[in-house]
Amino acid sequence: MFSVYKLLTGLLKVCNLLLSFPKTGLYDDSGGIEGSKWATSAGLLCHLPVMASPVALIQGASRGLGLEFCKYILKNKTRAAVIATCRNPDGAAELRGLAGQHPGKVTVLRLDVSREEDIRGAADRVKESFGRLDLIVNSSAMLHPSGKGETSLRDVSAQGIISTLTTNTVGPLVMAKYFAPLLQKGGGSFGQQPAEKAKQHSGIIVNITAKVGSIGDNGLGGWYSYRMSKAALNMATRNLSIELGRSRPKVVCVSLHPGTVNTDLSRPYHRNVPKDKLFSAEHSVNYLMSIIDTLNIEKTGRAYNWDGTELPW
Amino acid sequence: MFSVYKLLTGLLKVCNLLLSFPKTGLYDDSGGIEGSKWATSAGLLCHLPVMASPVALIQGASRGLGLEFCKYILKNKTRAAVIATCRNPDGAAELRGLAGQHPGKVTVLRLDVSREEDIRGAADRVKESFGRLDLIVNSSAMLHPSGKGETSLRDVSAQGIISTLTTNTVGPLVMAKYFAPLLQKGGGSFGQQPAEKAKQHSGIIVNITAKVGSIGDNGLGGWYSYRMSKAALNMATRNLSIELGRSRPKVVCVSLHPGTVNTDLSRPYHRNVPKDKLFSAEHSVNYLMSIIDTLNIEKTGRAYNWDGTELPW
Repeated sequence: MFSVYKLLTGLLKVCNLLLSFPKTGLYDDSGGIEGSKWATSAGLLCHLPVMASPVALIQGASRGLGLEFCKYILKNKTRAAVIATCRNPDGAAELRGLAGQHPGKVTVLRLDVSREEDIRGAADRVKESFGRLDLIVNSSAMLHPSGKGETSLRDVSAQGIISTLTTNTVGPLVMAKYFAPLLQKGGGSFGQQPAEKAKQHSGIIVNITAKVGSIGDNGLGGWYSYRMSKAALNMATRNLSIELGRSRPKVVCVSLHPGTVNTDLSRPYHRNVPKDKLFSAEHSVNYLMSIIDTLNIEKTGRAYNWDGTELPW
Repeated sequence: MFSVYKLLTGLLKVCNLLLSFPKTGLYDDSGGIEGSKWATSAGLLCHLPVMASPVALIQGASRGLGLEFCKYILKNKTRAAVIATCRNPDGAAELRGLAGQHPGKVTVLRLDVSREEDIRGAADRVKESFGRLDLIVNSSAMLHPSGKGETSLRDVSAQGIISTLTTNTVGPLVMAKYFAPLLQKGGGSFGQQPAEKAKQHSGIIVNITAKVGSIGDNGLGGWYSYRMSKAALNMATRNLSIELGRSRPKVVCVSLHPGTVNTDLSRPYHRNVPKDKLFSAEHSVNYLMSIIDTLNIEKTGRAYNWDGTELPW
């Protein structure tokens, strides 16, 4: 009897070990996988009460906040696998370097968030390699195709608004469409689960919003395209929180404002920002991850500032 | 001395009469003007303290709310000129009939709100014929290119969202870009001016929004494209109110929710609406015009329900 118990607990440990190394790797340009080393064998083990390792997807990971999210997770969630997507992996030297420093932990996927077929293709690959997701961060954004927000109506153009909306708003929603089924199969490794109760959420969607996307907080005007894209993104967050809050298991969905961060997007405006209000990407991601760490289903469908306070719509 | 006074007051009356008939007519397909009868001669008369007749532009006037706005203004503001824009005047039989019933009062312009060059061209023509504007109502909207709002993420497509945003959101903002200079030359004939004080606003922009475009009020989800387009439109309203509230003279800008109206847009959903909550277009426009009649610069930059109560963002 004792030896059967030992056999079973030993088997469980081996299963846990295997599951802690999901099938990761660096996608090459043709869509193949380099460096895949481990398979989850989820089909065999899905009925065992094992703790799967977290899987996080960072969309827009070649630079700025997205790249910093990858670094943070690799450093602080050592069991996690990171799927890092960007438009042009060939040009993403820093991301490729990061992947090289963490062999078997980072999967780089080519994904242009303005192309629905790219998103569908990436979801198919993630499904095949991981079968699930615990966290998506939609990070890529533009201020305006010109690099500068409109200071007045004179600068407004239909094409400028549509391009900004396509990247900042449509992209994250279409990401949710294709990745929600994988988040519903997630292990709920990010955020906070209730103590001694069944898990309430299986996954989390974070849409990076901006305080200037708050309609109620808007006292200055300008930046038409960017503001409108983030207001519409906040509506997407709210709508997603309702639809994915009805499902079982639930998916938490929030908008997070990272503060004014020292990235390419905000660079033209740095001289107007007090030094203590201009965050490094690392500083900002530390704040945002501490919010993500405390998310639960009660906090879904809202927009939060980097300091955890709620933002008005 | 008395005869000089009589001569001056007589001259003023003639000027008033001339200004009450702005240059209107029905544009033909080649862009020419049929039936133009009067010129404002604004260059000659601009220094006289005359009361110019109101000029209102209704965008999306071939049917539904837009057509009803034209009818209401022609019936109730008998001195007003109406510029009615639609994508296809040839197919807008009811609008052309209305123009025929009010000779010299209605100018029909071909304008596809998704085409910036159409909007710029229309603004050039209005500038040439009227030189100013008192009211714009941005009325055209779609629920989704399929005619049905998305019930879940499965129905979401990038192209569906982009098309909806282009018509419902980008169009009204680009309208504001090209027509704001004409509204700044308006006579402030719509809305409420302060008693015994200088006019505070010269013109009004009304963006037809929807209660389902309120992020804070969203408890049901679904209809991703439509909700997101109206949330972004509300941000446009807010931003416009700030920029055009700084100018002198000021332009008032509001979002108005017409209720659930018996139009083509909402037809697929009528069976779910209690009979007393389904408004005719005439009923709804009566409500909306009574809000417009009381607008002033204090009320700018907000969203109002058909009953005049303020909607949350």
